[in-house]
Amino acid sequence: MSQDGVAGAASSTGEKPRVLSGFRPTGPMHIGHLVGALENWVKLQSTHECYFAICDWHALTSEYANTADLRSNVIEMAIDWLASGLDPERCVIFVQSHVKEHAELHLLLSMIVPLSWLERVPTYKEQQQQITGRDLTNYGFLGYPVLQAADILVYRAGLVPVGEDQLAHLELCREIARRFNTLYGQVFPEPQGLTTRAPRVPGTDGRKMSKSYGNAISLSDPKEAVRSKILTMVTDPARKRRSDPGNPDVCPVFDLHKAFSSAATVARVDVECRRAGIGCVDCKNDLLGHLEPVLAPIRERRNELQVQRDRVRDILAAGAQRARREAAATLALAREAMHLDPEGCR
Amino acid sequence: MSQDGVAGAASSTGEKPRVLSGFRPTGPMHIGHLVGALENWVKLQSTHECYFAICDWHALTSEYANTADLRSNVIEMAIDWLASGLDPERCVIFVQSHVKEHAELHLLLSMIVPLSWLERVPTYKEQQQQITGRDLTNYGFLGYPVLQAADILVYRAGLVPVGEDQLAHLELCREIARRFNTLYGQVFPEPQGLTTRAPRVPGTDGRKMSKSYGNAISLSDPKEAVRSKILTMVTDPARKRRSDPGNPDVCPVFDLHKAFSSAATVARVDVECRRAGIGCVDCKNDLLGHLEPVLAPIRERRNELQVQRDRVRDILAAGAQRARREAAATLALAREAMHLDPEGCR
Repeated sequence: MSQDGVAGAASSTGEKPRVLSGFRPTGPMHIGHLVGALENWVKLQSTHECYFAICDWHALTSEYANTADLRSNVIEMAIDWLASGLDPERCVIFVQSHVKEHAELHLLLSMIVPLSWLERVPTYKEQQQQITGRDLTNYGFLGYPVLQAADILVYRAGLVPVGEDQLAHLELCREIARRFNTLYGQVFPEPQGLTTRAPRVPGTDGRKMSKSYGNAISLSDPKEAVRSKILTMVTDPARKRRSDPGNPDVCPVFDLHKAFSSAATVARVDVECRRAGIGCVDCKNDLLGHLEPVLAPIRERRNELQVQRDRVRDILAAGAQRARREAAATLALAREAMHLDPEGCR
Repeated sequence: MSQDGVAGAASSTGEKPRVLSGFRPTGPMHIGHLVGALENWVKLQSTHECYFAICDWHALTSEYANTADLRSNVIEMAIDWLASGLDPERCVIFVQSHVKEHAELHLLLSMIVPLSWLERVPTYKEQQQQITGRDLTNYGFLGYPVLQAADILVYRAGLVPVGEDQLAHLELCREIARRFNTLYGQVFPEPQGLTTRAPRVPGTDGRKMSKSYGNAISLSDPKEAVRSKILTMVTDPARKRRSDPGNPDVCPVFDLHKAFSSAATVARVDVECRRAGIGCVDCKNDLLGHLEPVLAPIRERRNELQVQRDRVRDILAAGAQRARREAAATLALAREAMHLDPEGCR
């Protein structure tokens, strides 16, 4: 997981290697998440034992003062995931705070993690500088990577799907696992990185897509909203008139083509834009022609799930129960290794 | 609780005000603990709703690399408490790590506690300087007061028995409660200090009694060991010969008289020492005559409990169950206040 959420792991203890991944429920999932994570998760369901966590405790590290929407964000995130193709019969979908073992392991790991390890995490100072208007000098914000390590290690996962920006966190998780194993004996595998290649998905203003930038196309956006966002999206800024030739290499719409359109369309747009054979509106309509068939079924399933909230709750409850079983087994091993007192009546 | 352990709280939500107190199971309880805490706890059982915690997670903050004896220390501590007169029918005796809600509340509170609050706690720098040979720069060591606040607040306790050195920790706990209530609405009472006056109990070398100084008289010491420790205990260093007059005001043995002997004995020793009417050996034998009647029944009950470990375990299991019921109720309120997702299947 980065601040924005994806992490994962896989172990080879069972038949299938184990994956844990998650997101912080701080707002709607967008098409960047779809291409960067969810589509990959849907594939991993078949080949891996997958745990997908809605990390509500993680959301508190930066959003502690702003929790009014947390509960609905959790449900909406579950709906986004299910609508995108996650199948609760083939993976475990759960809410982090429903599995208290994450908090217990976080506490145990906190005892052996040097402050200096946390202070040197690149995202720590970065986030403090970038996110203004909120006080991020709290104990829990500094401990974010400890909680993240607990999320991964509590399932004794052995492989973590990561992006470039998450390598420092994964390395820290590996260091924490190593330190625990050295102090108390082998309990945790050191998770290995599982790099996934995802196309770039810029926001409507050309920057990285992020709900906090207001440039995101959400999975929950109605068809008309998507259309309007795409049609007003920035393109090659040098192409002022229909008759100017454009440069797809600097056009964020072209990036979306590469993420969503067919190879033939991408090739055609690449040529026609450069010789002003098509205008930006043509190009955007082409994109919508490929984007909509991806989003329409997700939107449809979202609409169905919106009126089946009890079913969604049941899925989360069942997921928590399954996750808890694995997490409890890990905690029993960790407590034993640390010589903590076992409890008879649990 | 200080690093060395005592904390407490009392609320007036029920009929009796509620007290929480605890110790870190880092070694045998000694006569300083008896006079400074346990005797007070035994009294509080009748007048307050008491929760007494064996804080094994707290022990990890400094003893994380040295946990081999943790499990036996936990049981020995329970035996010390029961032998000293704690009655599981009248108070709740439990092991901190058996009640996961402490870890969960610790995590929730971590999100709202500024690092600066923790860095300014006087004991933080002090301990780091005083305790050498162990690396105390870990995340969990810095967070010690957060876990302590969770221990108190998880029972919504309203009064805390404290010594002088623990006032900073109590104030921090109050600040954390206040911050939570301000952010999320009133959940936690701000615990008030309940100061208890205890006589000074120096160790056999005249310094503060502490197992880490090797100057302690433990509740588990056999009669002969107590005798030998007292007979070799330092006295007024200026009194070299039997015929020299002594000064009880600087004599640690006299401090023990004040803690354990009758008023008549204290008065007599005070006079006779100053005029060399008694020697140090006489004085120490006098002390043993008062100390032994206190320790003998405790030792006897210890011996009985040593062979009833299953009964001790049952007491701890039942205590954890009772503690968990209260803690779970508090966590439900805290989660609700923070808009965390409730869980159906718990």
